Amino acid sequence: MKTPSDKRPIGIFDSGVGGLTVLKEVIKKLPSENIIYLGDTARVPYGARSPEIIMKYSLECAQFLLSRGIKLLVVACNTSSSISLPGLAQDLPVPVVGVVEPGARAAVAKSRSKKIAVIGTETTIKSGSYKRAIKAIDYSIDVMGLACPLFVPLVEEGWIRGNIVSLTAQKYLSPLKKFGADVLILGCTHYPIIKRVIREVAETNLIDSAAETAKEVKCILEESKVLRLDNSKPEREFFVTDSPKKFIQIGEMFLGQKISNISGINVGDLK
Amino acid sequence: MKTPSDKRPIGIFDSGVGGLTVLKEVIKKLPSENIIYLGDTARVPYGARSPEIIMKYSLECAQFLLSRGIKLLVVACNTSSSISLPGLAQDLPVPVVGVVEPGARAAVAKSRSKKIAVIGTETTIKSGSYKRAIKAIDYSIDVMGLACPLFVPLVEEGWIRGNIVSLTAQKYLSPLKKFGADVLILGCTHYPIIKRVIREVAETNLIDSAAETAKEVKCILEESKVLRLDNSKPEREFFVTDSPKKFIQIGEMFLGQKISNISGINVGDLK
Repeated sequence: MKTPSDKRPIGIFDSGVGGLTVLKEVIKKLPSENIIYLGDTARVPYGARSPEIIMKYSLECAQFLLSRGIKLLVVACNTSSSISLPGLAQDLPVPVVGVVEPGARAAVAKSRSKKIAVIGTETTIKSGSYKRAIKAIDYSIDVMGLACPLFVPLVEEGWIRGNIVSLTAQKYLSPLKKFGADVLILGCTHYPIIKRVIREVAETNLIDSAAETAKEVKCILEESKVLRLDNSKPEREFFVTDSPKKFIQIGEMFLGQKISNISGINVGDLK
Repeated sequence: MKTPSDKRPIGIFDSGVGGLTVLKEVIKKLPSENIIYLGDTARVPYGARSPEIIMKYSLECAQFLLSRGIKLLVVACNTSSSISLPGLAQDLPVPVVGVVEPGARAAVAKSRSKKIAVIGTETTIKSGSYKRAIKAIDYSIDVMGLACPLFVPLVEEGWIRGNIVSLTAQKYLSPLKKFGADVLILGCTHYPIIKRVIREVAETNLIDSAAETAKEVKCILEESKVLRLDNSKPEREFFVTDSPKKFIQIGEMFLGQKISNISGINVGDLK
């Protein structure tokens, strides 16, 4: 019997524009899928907030996407994946994929020295999520976490090369050399935009969770036999909780293509 | 007849910790007053959000303080003052004081060259609020606005001296020299913390709105005969919408004294 085509969209949410680096990879791997992206721009950034607030906001985003009939949820925000993934995976009636575990798996596969470093927001690093995910695969691996809170505002300001971002990277990444990591995980979706600067300073292999996450999404849809097999043009819809204007402006740098079909929604409607 | 003592508190709100520089000045000028401070830390920063969202959040903060019986409201956030002051002043049953007009008045009084510059968040500068306030006093004055979005995260990271903050200031403030301003308004409550760096780079007089705002608050309470005349120890209460822990940690640097009597409230209860 032929597998039927499942046109229900994939839902992706992030605190803002960062998750578009994940969306980009999902589109590459699954070009036929319908996708809804939600950026919670009225409350971005999540990176320095408390776990309780992040859980609350993440659940609201997830419920908005669920109400639109998604078949799978991608939590495309490292902070939210670190804090809210177990809760969401348990409560929601669809598969939930975060960015932490795919990134951790790829890092373990790549490391020879058994020393892996992770950079991310304050809350992601404090949560210890990458460390747990790596240790669950290979307990003998040493993990160092470094919070780099200024990278996100630097990227959003567009200062992605030059001496200020380089000096900032040097300051944040100086403990790396002594630690001796041969793999560095970019544990925040904004960081791939300044990958070149980070690589120059860190002088090590980089892992970008976005591509790994997209692979996992494809794998789950295939296994569950819920791929969209239709060859007609897929629908891509964007929602943001603050004005779409600024999202489009920065977002196109992240996505590498034009953003259309975007609507502003009231943050109060996320409940 | 003797004026009665009015023990109702002054209400102060800000998007986060920044408004504590205003609170500090209000305490200096009015040491006997009871004060309630609200920091909307679950949704900070306001500086890059749209006017509609800022209006909504500001109104919610104001209503929370009103429900606690304040006699005067201080909007201790430049972004919120720029966007929401006219609306709040019109709708609320108590006097409302923002930080923009006091800062503008002090700058006009100080300028000889009739060229004034203002630095602030993206939304404050875009709003043109300082320009309007200055022109309303003296239309012949030229005003230049410069948005400096990275100053807030730099201060919150504690990088308040050294080459990264200096280079950032040089980059943002380079148009100042050519313009020829003799007064620079610090149009964001975080900026007084890096006053020294800004002064070194800008080489001009600085105006900090906080002290000017406190003067205006005192003046209004005196005129309305609603001062607290009691000599017993005043009550100071703090509320934050995210966890109090981080607020205390950074806030004590802003306030220059210990913060106690602080409660976390649910952001959902601000409605």
